[in-house]
Amino acid sequence: MTQVLDRIRNGVDSAQMYGTLDAIKENPALGIFQFRAQNRWIDGAHNRSTIKDFYGAAQEDSSRAEAFAVDAGEPAVLLGSDTGPNPAEYLLHALAACLTTTLVYVATARKIRLTEVESTLEGNMDVRGCLGLSDEVRNGFTNIRVNFKVKGDAPPEKLREIVERAQARSAVFDMVNNGVPVEVTVEA
Amino acid sequence: MTQVLDRIRNGVDSAQMYGTLDAIKENPALGIFQFRAQNRWIDGAHNRSTIKDFYGAAQEDSSRAEAFAVDAGEPAVLLGSDTGPNPAEYLLHALAACLTTTLVYVATARKIRLTEVESTLEGNMDVRGCLGLSDEVRNGFTNIRVNFKVKGDAPPEKLREIVERAQARSAVFDMVNNGVPVEVTVEA
Repeated sequence: MTQVLDRIRNGVDSAQMYGTLDAIKENPALGIFQFRAQNRWIDGAHNRSTIKDFYGAAQEDSSRAEAFAVDAGEPAVLLGSDTGPNPAEYLLHALAACLTTTLVYVATARKIRLTEVESTLEGNMDVRGCLGLSDEVRNGFTNIRVNFKVKGDAPPEKLREIVERAQARSAVFDMVNNGVPVEVTVEA
Repeated sequence: MTQVLDRIRNGVDSAQMYGTLDAIKENPALGIFQFRAQNRWIDGAHNRSTIKDFYGAAQEDSSRAEAFAVDAGEPAVLLGSDTGPNPAEYLLHALAACLTTTLVYVATARKIRLTEVESTLEGNMDVRGCLGLSDEVRNGFTNIRVNFKVKGDAPPEKLREIVERAQARSAVFDMVNNGVPVEVTVEA
Protein backbone atom coordinates (compact mmCIF):
# COMPACT_ATOMS: atom_id res chain seq x y z
CA MET A 1 0.00 0.00 0.00
CA THR A 2 2.81 2.39 0.93
CA GLN A 3 4.46 1.48 -2.35
CA VAL A 4 1.30 2.32 -4.28
CA LEU A 5 0.96 5.63 -2.44
CA ASP A 6 4.58 6.47 -3.21
CA ARG A 7 4.05 5.56 -6.84
CA ILE A 8 1.10 7.92 -7.29
CA ARG A 9 2.35 11.48 -6.96
CA ASN A 10 0.18 14.48 -7.85
CA GLY A 11 -2.34 12.04 -9.30
CA VAL A 12 0.28 10.73 -11.73
CA ASP A 13 1.46 7.12 -11.68
CA SER A 14 5.21 7.73 -11.61
CA ALA A 15 6.04 4.10 -12.47
CA GLN A 16 3.84 4.34 -15.57
CA MET A 17 5.49 7.67 -16.39
CA TYR A 18 9.01 6.26 -16.24
CA GLY A 19 7.85 3.22 -18.23
CA THR A 20 6.39 5.46 -20.95
CA LEU A 21 9.54 7.56 -21.12
CA ASP A 22 11.76 4.46 -21.36
CA ALA A 23 9.59 2.90 -24.07
CA ILE A 24 9.73 6.04 -26.25
CA LYS A 25 13.47 6.43 -25.65
CA GLU A 26 13.98 2.88 -26.91
CA ASN A 27 11.58 3.21 -29.83
CA PRO A 28 11.23 6.83 -30.98
CA ALA A 29 8.43 5.89 -33.41
CA LEU A 30 6.17 5.56 -30.34
CA GLY A 31 6.51 9.33 -29.88
CA ILE A 32 4.76 10.22 -33.14
CA PHE A 33 1.26 11.55 -32.44
CA GLN A 34 -1.49 13.14 -34.50
CA PHE A 35 -4.30 14.98 -32.71
CA ARG A 36 -7.55 15.90 -34.45
CA ALA A 37 -10.71 17.94 -34.14
CA GLN A 38 -13.84 18.13 -36.28
CA ASN A 39 -15.85 21.32 -36.17
CA ARG A 40 -19.39 22.01 -37.37
CA TRP A 41 -21.04 25.41 -37.68
CA ILE A 42 -24.40 25.57 -35.92
CA ASP A 43 -25.65 29.17 -36.26
CA GLY A 44 -24.13 32.64 -36.06
CA ALA A 45 -21.07 32.53 -33.80
CA HIS A 46 -22.06 29.10 -32.45
CA ASN A 47 -20.00 26.14 -33.57
CA ARG A 48 -19.02 22.86 -31.98
CA SER A 49 -15.92 20.68 -32.15
CA THR A 50 -15.97 16.96 -31.56
CA ILE A 51 -12.72 15.40 -30.41
CA LYS A 52 -12.18 11.67 -30.09
CA ASP A 53 -9.67 9.66 -32.10
CA PHE A 54 -5.96 10.29 -32.36
CA TYR A 55 -2.88 8.46 -33.53
CA GLY A 56 -0.09 7.76 -31.07
CA ALA A 57 2.24 5.09 -29.67
CA ALA A 58 2.29 3.48 -33.14
CA GLN A 59 -1.45 2.94 -33.42
CA GLU A 60 -4.86 4.53 -33.89
CA ASP A 61 -6.11 5.13 -30.37
CA SER A 62 -9.68 4.05 -29.69
CA SER A 63 -9.61 4.21 -25.91
CA ARG A 64 -12.18 7.01 -25.79
CA ALA A 65 -15.67 5.50 -25.81
CA GLU A 66 -17.33 8.83 -26.62
CA ALA A 67 -16.28 12.02 -28.33
CA PHE A 68 -15.81 15.21 -26.34
CA ALA A 69 -18.04 18.02 -27.65
CA VAL A 70 -16.96 21.61 -27.03
CA ASP A 71 -19.07 24.61 -27.97
CA ALA A 72 -17.73 28.00 -28.98
CA GLY A 73 -19.55 31.32 -29.16
CA GLU A 74 -19.18 35.06 -28.81
CA PRO A 75 -20.69 37.47 -26.30
CA ALA A 76 -23.41 39.89 -27.48
CA VAL A 77 -20.94 42.75 -27.95
CA LEU A 78 -19.16 40.60 -30.54
CA LEU A 79 -22.41 39.60 -32.28
CA GLY A 80 -23.00 36.21 -30.66
CA SER A 81 -25.32 34.83 -27.99
CA ASP A 82 -22.74 33.40 -25.56
CA THR A 83 -23.09 29.76 -26.58
CA GLY A 84 -19.61 29.10 -25.17
CA PRO A 85 -16.24 30.75 -24.56
CA ASN A 86 -14.96 32.52 -27.64
CA PRO A 87 -12.08 31.12 -29.71
CA ALA A 88 -9.46 33.48 -28.23
CA GLU A 89 -10.56 32.47 -24.71
CA TYR A 90 -10.19 28.80 -25.73
CA LEU A 91 -6.64 29.56 -26.82
CA LEU A 92 -5.92 30.96 -23.32
CA HIS A 93 -7.46 27.81 -21.83
CA ALA A 94 -5.30 25.57 -24.04
CA LEU A 95 -2.20 27.48 -22.93
CA ALA A 96 -3.12 27.37 -19.22
CA ALA A 97 -3.98 23.67 -19.37
CA CYS A 98 -0.76 22.69 -21.15
CA LEU A 99 1.53 24.70 -18.87
CA THR A 100 -0.27 23.25 -15.84
CA THR A 101 -0.09 19.61 -16.94
CA THR A 102 3.54 19.97 -17.99
CA LEU A 103 4.31 21.54 -14.61
CA VAL A 104 2.53 18.69 -12.77
CA TYR A 105 4.47 16.03 -14.73
CA VAL A 106 7.78 17.82 -14.10
CA ALA A 107 7.02 18.08 -10.37
CA THR A 108 6.14 14.37 -10.29
CA ALA A 109 9.44 13.44 -11.96
CA ARG A 110 11.28 15.61 -9.40
CA LYS A 111 9.41 13.98 -6.49
CA ILE A 112 7.75 17.25 -5.48
CA ARG A 113 4.21 16.98 -4.10
CA LEU A 114 2.06 19.89 -5.22
CA THR A 115 -0.84 21.17 -3.16
CA GLU A 116 -2.07 24.03 -5.37
CA VAL A 117 -1.54 25.24 -8.92
CA GLU A 118 -3.58 28.17 -10.16
CA SER A 119 -3.05 30.50 -13.07
CA THR A 120 -4.68 33.63 -14.42
CA LEU A 121 -4.27 34.58 -18.06
CA GLU A 122 -4.90 37.81 -19.93
CA GLY A 123 -4.68 38.44 -23.66
CA ASN A 124 -4.90 41.94 -25.13
CA MET A 125 -6.44 42.52 -28.53
CA ASP A 126 -7.47 45.43 -30.72
CA VAL A 127 -10.45 43.89 -32.51
CA ARG A 128 -10.15 46.38 -35.39
CA GLY A 129 -7.75 43.80 -36.85
CA CYS A 130 -10.04 40.77 -36.89
CA LEU A 131 -13.07 42.91 -37.81
CA GLY A 132 -11.26 44.12 -40.91
CA LEU A 133 -11.22 47.78 -39.83
CA SER A 134 -7.45 48.28 -39.65
CA ASP A 135 -4.37 46.84 -41.27
CA GLU A 136 -2.14 48.50 -38.71
CA VAL A 137 -3.04 46.24 -35.80
CA ARG A 138 -2.67 42.48 -35.79
CA ASN A 139 -5.71 40.19 -35.71
CA GLY A 140 -4.71 38.24 -32.61
CA PHE A 141 -3.51 39.14 -29.15
CA THR A 142 -0.60 41.59 -29.06
CA ASN A 143 0.62 39.79 -25.92
CA ILE A 144 -0.44 37.24 -23.33
CA ARG A 145 0.31 37.42 -19.61
CA VAL A 146 0.21 34.32 -17.42
CA ASN A 147 0.54 34.41 -13.62
CA PHE A 148 1.01 31.16 -11.70
CA LYS A 149 0.48 30.49 -8.01
CA VAL A 150 2.19 27.24 -7.07
CA LYS A 151 2.35 25.56 -3.64
CA GLY A 152 3.93 22.26 -2.64
CA ASP A 153 6.50 20.54 -0.43
CA ALA A 154 9.51 22.27 -2.00
CA PRO A 155 11.15 25.65 -1.41
CA PRO A 156 9.89 28.58 -3.54
CA GLU A 157 12.95 28.52 -5.83
CA LYS A 158 12.28 24.85 -6.71
CA LEU A 159 8.63 25.65 -7.43
CA ARG A 160 9.67 28.55 -9.65
CA GLU A 161 12.07 26.19 -11.42
CA ILE A 162 9.31 23.74 -12.34
CA VAL A 163 7.31 26.60 -13.90
CA GLU A 164 10.38 27.53 -15.94
CA ARG A 165 10.80 23.92 -16.99
CA ALA A 166 7.10 23.77 -17.95
CA GLN A 167 7.61 26.75 -20.29
CA ALA A 168 10.64 25.02 -21.77
CA ARG A 169 8.63 21.85 -22.54
CA SER A 170 4.95 22.77 -22.96
CA ALA A 171 3.58 21.93 -26.42
CA VAL A 172 0.98 24.72 -26.45
CA PHE A 173 3.37 27.31 -24.99
CA ASP A 174 5.74 26.50 -27.87
CA MET A 175 2.96 26.77 -30.46
CA VAL A 176 1.47 30.01 -29.12
CA ASN A 177 4.81 31.67 -28.44
CA ASN A 178 6.55 30.59 -31.66
CA GLY A 179 3.76 29.84 -34.13
CA VAL A 180 3.05 26.73 -36.24
CA PRO A 181 2.62 26.54 -40.03
CA VAL A 182 -1.11 26.14 -40.73
CA GLU A 183 -2.27 24.91 -44.14
CA VAL A 184 -5.93 25.47 -45.06
CA THR A 185 -7.68 23.68 -47.93
CA VAL A 186 -11.29 24.10 -49.06
CA GLU A 187 -13.93 21.94 -50.68
CA ALA A 188 -16.67 24.22 -52.01
CA MET B 1 -41.15 40.57 -40.76
CA THR B 2 -39.45 40.35 -44.14
CA GLN B 3 -37.15 43.12 -42.99
CA VAL B 4 -36.23 41.18 -39.86
CA LEU B 5 -35.60 38.01 -41.88
CA ASP B 6 -33.38 39.95 -44.26
CA ARG B 7 -31.52 41.46 -41.36
CA ILE B 8 -30.67 38.09 -39.80
CA ARG B 9 -28.29 36.24 -42.08
CA ASN B 10 -26.48 33.06 -41.02
CA GLY B 11 -27.79 33.72 -37.50
CA VAL B 12 -26.02 37.09 -37.43
CA ASP B 13 -27.92 40.36 -37.08
CA SER B 14 -26.38 42.24 -39.99
CA ALA B 15 -27.78 45.62 -38.85
CA GLN B 16 -26.12 45.13 -35.46
CA MET B 17 -22.94 44.07 -37.24
CA TYR B 18 -22.79 47.22 -39.39
CA GLY B 19 -23.65 49.31 -36.29
CA THR B 20 -20.78 47.75 -34.33
CA LEU B 21 -18.32 48.26 -37.19
CA ASP B 22 -19.38 51.92 -37.58
CA ALA B 23 -19.13 52.59 -33.84
CA ILE B 24 -15.56 51.18 -33.65
CA LYS B 25 -14.55 53.03 -36.82
CA GLU B 26 -15.69 56.29 -35.21
CA ASN B 27 -14.17 55.56 -31.81
CA PRO B 28 -11.21 53.15 -32.09
CA ALA B 29 -10.97 52.91 -28.27
CA LEU B 30 -14.07 50.70 -28.43
CA GLY B 31 -11.96 48.09 -30.23
CA ILE B 32 -9.63 47.48 -27.28
CA PHE B 33 -10.44 44.10 -25.67
CA GLN B 34 -8.87 41.96 -22.97
CA PHE B 35 -9.90 38.31 -22.69
CA ARG B 36 -9.13 36.22 -19.61
CA ALA B 37 -9.10 32.70 -18.24
CA GLN B 38 -8.45 31.33 -14.76
CA ASN B 39 -7.18 27.79 -14.45
CA ARG B 40 -7.05 25.51 -11.43
CA TRP B 41 -5.23 22.17 -11.20
CA ILE B 42 -7.47 19.37 -9.94
CA ASP B 43 -5.39 16.17 -10.06
CA GLY B 44 -2.88 14.60 -12.43
CA ALA B 45 -3.58 15.83 -15.98
CA HIS B 46 -6.99 17.17 -14.94
CA ASN B 47 -7.38 20.93 -14.72
CA ARG B 48 -10.25 23.33 -15.28
CA SER B 49 -10.48 26.85 -16.67
CA THR B 50 -13.24 29.25 -15.75
CA ILE B 51 -13.97 31.99 -18.25
CA LYS B 52 -16.36 34.86 -17.58
CA ASP B 53 -15.38 38.51 -17.46
CA PHE B 54 -13.61 40.47 -20.14
CA TYR B 55 -12.92 44.07 -21.01
CA GLY B 56 -14.21 45.47 -24.28
CA ALA B 57 -16.11 48.35 -25.89
CA ALA B 58 -14.63 50.70 -23.26
CA GLN B 59 -15.98 48.83 -20.23
CA GLU B 60 -15.75 45.75 -18.05
CA ASP B 61 -18.29 43.35 -19.53
CA SER B 62 -20.59 41.66 -17.04
CA SER B 63 -23.15 40.31 -19.47
CA ARG B 64 -22.32 36.70 -18.65
CA ALA B 65 -24.37 35.60 -15.65
CA GLU B 66 -22.26 32.49 -15.08
CA ALA B 67 -18.72 31.46 -15.86
CA PHE B 68 -17.99 28.83 -18.48
CA ALA B 69 -16.04 25.89 -17.03
CA VAL B 70 -13.89 23.82 -19.40
CA ASP B 71 -12.03 20.71 -18.32
CA ALA B 72 -8.76 19.50 -19.79
CA GLY B 73 -7.17 16.07 -19.51
CA GLU B 74 -4.96 13.54 -21.23
CA PRO B 75 -5.74 10.05 -22.50
CA ALA B 76 -4.26 7.04 -20.66
CA VAL B 77 -1.34 6.72 -23.09
CA LEU B 78 -0.27 10.23 -22.05
CA LEU B 79 -0.69 9.49 -18.33
CA GLY B 80 -4.14 10.96 -17.76
CA SER B 81 -7.65 9.61 -17.29
CA ASP B 82 -9.45 11.40 -20.13
CA THR B 83 -11.10 14.10 -18.05
CA GLY B 84 -11.40 16.25 -21.17
CA PRO B 85 -9.72 16.99 -24.50
CA ASN B 86 -6.02 17.58 -24.11
CA PRO B 87 -4.49 21.06 -24.42
CA ALA B 88 -3.23 20.52 -27.99
CA GLU B 89 -6.71 19.37 -29.03
CA TYR B 90 -8.16 22.52 -27.44
CA LEU B 91 -5.77 24.57 -29.56
CA LEU B 92 -7.15 22.85 -32.69
CA HIS B 93 -10.68 23.61 -31.46
CA ALA B 94 -9.79 27.29 -30.88
CA LEU B 95 -8.40 27.50 -34.42
CA ALA B 96 -11.41 25.76 -36.01
CA ALA B 97 -13.88 27.88 -34.06
CA CYS B 98 -12.19 31.17 -34.93
CA LEU B 99 -11.83 30.43 -38.64
CA THR B 100 -15.47 29.32 -38.72
CA THR B 101 -16.90 32.36 -36.96
CA THR B 102 -14.76 34.72 -39.02
CA LEU B 103 -15.94 32.95 -42.18
CA VAL B 104 -19.60 33.24 -41.08
CA TYR B 105 -19.24 36.98 -40.36
CA VAL B 106 -17.51 37.56 -43.71
CA ALA B 107 -20.25 35.66 -45.56
CA THR B 108 -22.90 37.70 -43.73
CA ALA B 109 -21.21 40.97 -44.75
CA ARG B 110 -21.11 39.73 -48.35
CA LYS B 111 -24.80 38.73 -48.26
CA ILE B 112 -24.01 35.05 -48.79
CA ARG B 113 -26.30 32.57 -47.05
CA LEU B 114 -24.38 29.55 -45.79
CA THR B 115 -25.99 26.15 -45.42
CA GLU B 116 -23.02 24.11 -44.15
CA VAL B 117 -19.57 24.78 -42.75
CA GLU B 118 -17.52 21.86 -41.53
CA SER B 119 -13.83 21.52 -40.88
CA THR B 120 -11.44 18.75 -39.95
CA LEU B 121 -8.12 19.57 -38.31
CA GLU B 122 -4.98 17.51 -37.80
CA GLY B 123 -1.86 18.46 -35.87
CA ASN B 124 1.31 16.35 -36.00
CA MET B 125 3.60 16.11 -33.01
CA ASP B 126 6.64 14.15 -31.90
CA VAL B 127 6.01 13.99 -28.15
CA ARG B 128 9.70 13.39 -27.44
CA GLY B 129 9.89 17.20 -27.38
CA CYS B 130 7.31 17.92 -24.70
CA LEU B 131 8.33 14.83 -22.69
CA GLY B 132 11.88 16.15 -22.47
CA LEU B 133 13.40 13.21 -24.41
CA SER B 134 14.78 15.15 -27.36
CA ASP B 135 16.06 18.65 -28.07
CA GLU B 136 15.97 18.00 -31.81
CA VAL B 137 12.19 18.05 -32.21
CA ARG B 138 9.96 20.94 -31.21
CA ASN B 139 7.52 20.64 -28.32
CA GLY B 140 4.40 21.57 -30.27
CA PHE B 141 2.87 20.54 -33.58
CA THR B 142 5.27 20.61 -36.51
CA ASN B 143 2.30 21.59 -38.73
CA ILE B 144 -1.47 21.85 -38.71
CA ARG B 145 -3.77 20.93 -41.60
CA VAL B 146 -7.30 22.33 -41.84
CA ASN B 147 -9.83 21.19 -44.44
CA PHE B 148 -13.07 23.12 -44.85
CA LYS B 149 -16.30 22.04 -46.52
CA VAL B 150 -18.44 25.07 -47.23
CA LYS B 151 -21.88 25.21 -48.86
CA GLY B 152 -24.16 28.18 -49.51
CA ASP B 153 -25.95 30.27 -52.12
CA ALA B 154 -22.80 31.46 -53.89
CA PRO B 155 -20.57 29.88 -56.54
CA PRO B 156 -17.63 27.74 -55.34
CA GLU B 157 -15.06 30.46 -56.07
CA LYS B 158 -16.94 32.93 -53.83
CA LEU B 159 -17.10 30.34 -51.06
CA ARG B 160 -13.36 29.68 -51.39
CA GLU B 161 -12.81 33.44 -51.23
CA ILE B 162 -14.57 33.75 -47.87
CA VAL B 163 -12.34 31.00 -46.44
CA GLU B 164 -9.31 32.96 -47.67
CA ARG B 165 -10.68 36.12 -46.14
CA ALA B 166 -11.27 34.23 -42.86
CA GLN B 167 -7.60 33.24 -42.78
CA ALA B 168 -6.62 36.84 -43.45
CA ARG B 169 -8.69 38.09 -40.48
CA SER B 170 -9.02 35.29 -37.90
CA ALA B 171 -7.53 36.20 -34.52
CA VAL B 172 -6.58 32.62 -33.58
CA PHE B 173 -5.25 31.78 -37.06
CA ASP B 174 -2.95 34.80 -36.71
CA MET B 175 -1.82 33.74 -33.22
CA VAL B 176 -1.23 30.08 -34.07
CA ASN B 177 0.38 30.76 -37.43
CA ASN B 178 2.56 33.69 -36.32
CA GLY B 179 2.96 33.31 -32.57
CA VAL B 180 2.31 35.77 -29.72
CA PRO B 181 4.75 36.91 -27.01
CA VAL B 182 3.79 35.11 -23.77
CA GLU B 183 5.09 36.40 -20.45
CA VAL B 184 4.91 34.04 -17.46
CA THR B 185 5.28 35.17 -13.85
CA VAL B 186 5.19 33.00 -10.71
CA GLU B 187 4.15 33.42 -7.09
CA ALA B 188 5.63 30.55 -5.10
